[in-house]
Amino acid sequence: MKKYIAELFGTFWLVLGGCGSAVLAAAFPDVGIGLLGVSLAFGLTVLTMAYAIGHISGCHLNPAVSIGLFVGGRFPANELLPYIIAQVAGGLIAGGVLFVIASGAAGFDVSAGFASNGFGAHSPGGYSLVAALVCEVVMTMMFLLVIMGSTDKRAPAGMAPIAIGLCLTLIHLISIPVTNTSVNPARSTGVALYVGDWAVSQLWLFWVAPIIGAALGAFIYKFIADEDS
Amino acid sequence: MKKYIAELFGTFWLVLGGCGSAVLAAAFPDVGIGLLGVSLAFGLTVLTMAYAIGHISGCHLNPAVSIGLFVGGRFPANELLPYIIAQVAGGLIAGGVLFVIASGAAGFDVSAGFASNGFGAHSPGGYSLVAALVCEVVMTMMFLLVIMGSTDKRAPAGMAPIAIGLCLTLIHLISIPVTNTSVNPARSTGVALYVGDWAVSQLWLFWVAPIIGAALGAFIYKFIADEDS
Amino acid sequence: MKKYIAELFGTFWLVLGGCGSAVLAAAFPDVGIGLLGVSLAFGLTVLTMAYAIGHISGCHLNPAVSIGLFVGGRFPANELLPYIIAQVAGGLIAGGVLFVIASGAAGFDVSAGFASNGFGAHSPGGYSLVAALVCEVVMTMMFLLVIMGSTDKRAPAGMAPIAIGLCLTLIHLISIPVTNTSVNPARSTGVALYVGDWAVSQLWLFWVAPIIGAALGAFIYKFIADEDS
Amino acid sequence: MKKYIAELFGTFWLVLGGCGSAVLAAAFPDVGIGLLGVSLAFGLTVLTMAYAIGHISGCHLNPAVSIGLFVGGRFPANELLPYIIAQVAGGLIAGGVLFVIASGAAGFDVSAGFASNGFGAHSPGGYSLVAALVCEVVMTMMFLLVIMGSTDKRAPAGMAPIAIGLCLTLIHLISIPVTNTSVNPARSTGVALYVGDWAVSQLWLFWVAPIIGAALGAFIYKFIADEDS
Repeated sequence: MKKYIAELFGTFWLVLGGCGSAVLAAAFPDVGIGLLGVSLAFGLTVLTMAYAIGHISGCHLNPAVSIGLFVGGRFPANELLPYIIAQVAGGLIAGGVLFVIASGAAGFDVSAGFASNGFGAHSPGGYSLVAALVCEVVMTMMFLLVIMGSTDKRAPAGMAPIAIGLCLTLIHLISIPVTNTSVNPARSTGVALYVGDWAVSQLWLFWVAPIIGAALGAFIYKFIADEDS
Repeated sequence: MKKYIAELFGTFWLVLGGCGSAVLAAAFPDVGIGLLGVSLAFGLTVLTMAYAIGHISGCHLNPAVSIGLFVGGRFPANELLPYIIAQVAGGLIAGGVLFVIASGAAGFDVSAGFASNGFGAHSPGGYSLVAALVCEVVMTMMFLLVIMGSTDKRAPAGMAPIAIGLCLTLIHLISIPVTNTSVNPARSTGVALYVGDWAVSQLWLFWVAPIIGAALGAFIYKFIADEDS
Repeated sequence: MKKYIAELFGTFWLVLGGCGSAVLAAAFPDVGIGLLGVSLAFGLTVLTMAYAIGHISGCHLNPAVSIGLFVGGRFPANELLPYIIAQVAGGLIAGGVLFVIASGAAGFDVSAGFASNGFGAHSPGGYSLVAALVCEVVMTMMFLLVIMGSTDKRAPAGMAPIAIGLCLTLIHLISIPVTNTSVNPARSTGVALYVGDWAVSQLWLFWVAPIIGAALGAFIYKFIADEDS
Repeated sequence: MKKYIAELFGTFWLVLGGCGSAVLAAAFPDVGIGLLGVSLAFGLTVLTMAYAIGHISGCHLNPAVSIGLFVGGRFPANELLPYIIAQVAGGLIAGGVLFVIASGAAGFDVSAGFASNGFGAHSPGGYSLVAALVCEVVMTMMFLLVIMGSTDKRAPAGMAPIAIGLCLTLIHLISIPVTNTSVNPARSTGVALYVGDWAVSQLWLFWVAPIIGAALGAFIYKFIADEDS
């Protein structure tokens, strides 16, 4: 039970930190943190939590990661559902807390996006559904490859949180303009439900693409790592 | 005695580095470091000091952290008062040194804020008292969760300074627009006393909220970490 | 065979992440990541991959690095060709995937540069061939010195991916204005072939200079490290 | 002899990387790296070199650091002069290489500053001699405290390069507007001699203040660390 609560708090931190920095600070006048600051924030939520709760739950914070690790033979099937429920719950609570804070300033309008993921007309840079799909699949694929590799017994001990956290930063540095970057269905769901409308109707892509990508990445790592030989 | 002096110098560095970067460099014309640079600076004061004096005093640099660690069963009650006194003293000395440096350029006006924390009319983004309170409580809560977790015996050895320092960076990336980010009563006090006026009259929130949040975070970590089982 | 596939995926990530952040996010309106974000992205591709596949292939991701390590006595001659082929193939696939994603938004024009390296009229800051040559040689020289040194048995174990990844970030912070920064023939080739024209006709410099620099750097490290004594 | 050459190359990298990023990339139109990028670059020169040559020469790269470590009982007096000569030589060579590269673009004017340190009319933000002196002394004092502490036998092994490198980043985040940040006489000398004029006539402060600060910092650490008990 305690590891599910750890996943809940961890995903809460991922969504509050990542989406919170985007909503509250990215476009602050003159000194805003921009997409670079948001990218760093997302990565640091994972880096900090992986050191804080990695020894409790493994610190997935992401349904696609849990599924990828299952495909990679690192996570049992019977833990998938409780992990995913805890992750989505943590994301939704974070969305609620962020809503309370953001509403505390004049001019806040949740329908401006609330850091939701989108494609086509709702992509930050106007990228098509196909570009969004390719981007989310490839980014999550490489994310899982880094997760599987840096937690391999042959990799340096204790450094995986840095590799994985900064990999999420890197993914955001590349792909925020395309989809606002998901690679994480819990992160997408955690804010989309407060926006409703297009954010909910486009949400399917941010479940489907990350899960496909994660499975691919885990499979590729298993192959190149020759773990069974 | 020596550990109190270590805490004093450490908190001196936190306030001089964090508030100094904000006052001197954040809005420098054209090439200023912005809120992203200030966030990095705050985090790096803790990262650098944790490696430098962690083995001497534990490197709390923050009354809320000391109180949180006491709640979490990691710090003895009889050390609380001397630690807090040393931290506030270090913060106040840093405010003085920063005042001397900042006064060396034409146009410096301490009443412009001097990196003080505030809410309502004195929040950088005009956030209400309620938003400020929620934000400071939640941010400090997650800070303590990361501090307790990354210094847990089961976490990778030697990496806690990175996790904790970059957690403070992350907290600033999210919340500078809301309260100018405190999560640390010594940091707030260290500059507010030079500003006086509103900075002092709003100072209570930056003692109360971080301490409540820290206690909550320590309590949650104890619960999910199942340390007593 | 598996290590060549690891090199292919690793170099794919380097070119997709580095050039992708440049093409998609560097100049995004108002909140773009700028050259600082691109520099961070390039470095993080190497940092993340070195933790993920370092134990499989050594994670060179760069023909100049493979050649430098050969000169430094750390890599066998008979592995050079397959490594370089895998690296260039990974770079070209990355260029293709980036092309697909980037084409998904209106206004994309590959002839605007597609993150290609260049000198003279095609240097971002208009730097001459001589400046470009000196810059690429010196940058790659120092890169190899850091690679050889941080992977020396006497250096702290497990930290080389951080040193090497952030060295590539540093190199970009200095030299993007000069040549768009190569120090890696596979990275240059991976995008230049999609641009054709000047990007291909200037490509020779981004093979010649990095390889000369890499050989120099490996030689210098061998000398100062006194490895044979 | 080899450790002196290591110091020469290391200081070459510090000045080329730090001052090079400032001269070439800080104010690049629209996407320039700003003072944040320059701060990161300075820190990364030390982080990368400390992993690359720390096991050869200790990687001081700075006469004030060598003198501070001597005061702190960590460095023998008879090594001071050769280390300082190697450091200044490395800085001067870096200034020359940077001059060659920077001259390769139209509009380069060394008298615009060439990243030299200054105070009063030559401080980036117009800070007075007193502010500059206080700032350089305090910054170098804290730098040595972090160097002494993070290389203490009781600090986590292998992490000092991160603490020390990022401390230099932090110092720049605070103090570039005041003096363009020295804390390192070799860095100041390495570019000032190419500018001549005011850069040379103000150079004394950037030898005197860092050395005083370094001695103070080493003394303070010895005191709080209770090393002799």
